[in-house]
Amino acid sequence: MSTADEGIRPGEIAVDLPAAFDASLYFIGHIRTPWREREQCPRQGDRDAGPDCRLEIEPRWHQALEGIARHAELQVMYWMNFARRDLVLQIPRGEDKQGTFALRSPVRPNPIASSIVRLIGIEPGTLVVRGLDCLDGTPLLDVKPVHKP
Amino acid sequence: MSTADEGIRPGEIAVDLPAAFDASLYFIGHIRTPWREREQCPRQGDRDAGPDCRLEIEPRWHQALEGIARHAELQVMYWMNFARRDLVLQIPRGEDKQGTFALRSPVRPNPIASSIVRLIGIEPGTLVVRGLDCLDGTPLLDVKPVHKP
Repeated sequence: MSTADEGIRPGEIAVDLPAAFDASLYFIGHIRTPWREREQCPRQGDRDAGPDCRLEIEPRWHQALEGIARHAELQVMYWMNFARRDLVLQIPRGEDKQGTFALRSPVRPNPIASSIVRLIGIEPGTLVVRGLDCLDGTPLLDVKPVHKP
Repeated sequence: MSTADEGIRPGEIAVDLPAAFDASLYFIGHIRTPWREREQCPRQGDRDAGPDCRLEIEPRWHQALEGIARHAELQVMYWMNFARRDLVLQIPRGEDKQGTFALRSPVRPNPIASSIVRLIGIEPGTLVVRGLDCLDGTPLLDVKPVHKP
């Protein structure tokens, strides 16, 4: 189940994944960013100074964007599809060993990322936003307004 | 694909769902809350005054909790498994018609909820938290620290 892409460091621990999945996802579109390699991605997106990124929504869901212009900030969820899912203990670069749920690493049982972005502009079927840090082509799962406190 | 549980109001619009899913999820545990019926759930969780809720993690993932005690606030993701997924325009009670991505309604293509909670206590395989508003028994997808700004 794990990709050959990423090995385990000494001290990291993997578990057997469950035999079956419990629920399934639709990709509602893809994210366009300037970053083609993981090494280029910033560690955290910048809602002010970061580059414009684009949320390209599949035509099936375009009507679901109605009314989104009133929201200055949005929560974006996306799928970190390159990550292995079976590590319970990880050793992030330059840090001590920690449990997966004590980290925001993409390596986790369900590699769902959540970022808060600023809405910069709207084009047909596309949202222009700032604040992302993911690879170009990343599958998009959801867009929703940020809760008002 | 839609549950019989929820109808469409006049003016709401449903689309055909994609023929296939794109990715799949593991439930890593379940959430225990005081609310057994949707009508009992608060509209938004309260991290200060809300009741203690419990994140019960499957034994497979218990080691992934190591080090979580240092985080006062956590992001919890869970699966709103009762919701239909095919509405693009919705009319929330007492509000105007809006696109699904302009709402935090559970009715959306991928019904993933995200809440920020306060970590109150840790028991073996279980986190006690405040700030949730979901039904008892809700499937849990992920727990991660809140990003420091």
